[in-house]
Amino acid sequence: MVMRLRSYWRSSCSWRVRIALNLKAIDYEIDPVHLVKDGGEQFSELHTKLNPENLVPVLNDNEQAISQSVAICEYLEECHPTPPLLPKSTADRAVVRQMVEIINSSIQPIQNLRVGARLKKKYDFDERQVRAWNRHWIENGFDALERLVERHGGAACFGDEVTLADAFLVPQLYNAERFDVDMDRYRLLSAIDARLGFHPAFIEARPERQPDCPEHMRSVD
Amino acid sequence: MVMRLRSYWRSSCSWRVRIALNLKAIDYEIDPVHLVKDGGEQFSELHTKLNPENLVPVLNDNEQAISQSVAICEYLEECHPTPPLLPKSTADRAVVRQMVEIINSSIQPIQNLRVGARLKKKYDFDERQVRAWNRHWIENGFDALERLVERHGGAACFGDEVTLADAFLVPQLYNAERFDVDMDRYRLLSAIDARLGFHPAFIEARPERQPDCPEHMRSVD
Repeated sequence: MVMRLRSYWRSSCSWRVRIALNLKAIDYEIDPVHLVKDGGEQFSELHTKLNPENLVPVLNDNEQAISQSVAICEYLEECHPTPPLLPKSTADRAVVRQMVEIINSSIQPIQNLRVGARLKKKYDFDERQVRAWNRHWIENGFDALERLVERHGGAACFGDEVTLADAFLVPQLYNAERFDVDMDRYRLLSAIDARLGFHPAFIEARPERQPDCPEHMRSVD
Repeated sequence: MVMRLRSYWRSSCSWRVRIALNLKAIDYEIDPVHLVKDGGEQFSELHTKLNPENLVPVLNDNEQAISQSVAICEYLEECHPTPPLLPKSTADRAVVRQMVEIINSSIQPIQNLRVGARLKKKYDFDERQVRAWNRHWIENGFDALERLVERHGGAACFGDEVTLADAFLVPQLYNAERFDVDMDRYRLLSAIDARLGFHPAFIEARPERQPDCPEHMRSVD
């Protein structure tokens, strides 16, 4: 049975998983979950049953529903090891996982939609303040990531082969640009992102290529 | 050469790794990093070189410095597979990793020291507001985790054997109590925490057992 991914076009966590699925050339279908409409479809009864965290993405495979993008990507790596998205040696794998977690844990959770929404609703942050908040945490993580890539990177975040670190970087960089992070500070991350802009697996995973992307956003970069 | 862990006694991320090291009976030594004193020793030149993110923990093994607790635990699992801290089947491993990431990504990053410090310094939150903020995100994640444990748990978070999910749960539960989360809502998580209170690997990892725990905190629960 074909895998199904519950995904939202603009969710960076869904986007990471789409990249991983595409890189491994796994056949899958998208079930769109609209995070904003009607208070958010992630709170529906069906979705709550599949993921009690009420977040996307959720991967459905063999009647199992898996959430959390890192858990999904590790699962894909174990079930579909070719091509690998982690290097071979334990030492190198640790570096890639560290890069992944800088984005997955140190950046994205603090600058995501639900945190911004709470800062606005409960603490009277305006849009400008939320954007500054987001920018701060992205820059904080990117400062570290740029240094790690300087040490370990090449054409990609780790060496010259695409790894999970790249699948996590590209969607985060899209958010960085949305929130006006000065990407001149991150020459290496920007260069990798630019190169991956030509990679079919990355192109197909982009938000504007998704079935649930609104028509008027399809031509927006 | 013996492993060394750069750790702070009260850091929940350091604590997770101490539990994993103890469970695997790996010999290691602690290098304390004081996160508050003198503006924070994590910003020293030495620490920055080892971890450009300026966070603990950092595991030093064979001249490699590994950061991010998930990356460290996966590394330990690969280098020292016995006893395993992840189940055997890919499907089960995905569930445990999902539990781990609920704490690692959905809860802890939003309620940690540096986020609270920024809310206070930059946005005039008082102590009470920061505590309510922390509580909200812990409850949000624990609501989901309690349901997953209901579905998959036993004596431990996943079945009856200790896994990484338990190593991540116990320190997070300590924080939940610090911030007055009503633990009556989380009967299963509380019961697991209580059981693990008798487990030597968990006891030895506790903050008050650490060399850098201040004398007056040693008897505090």
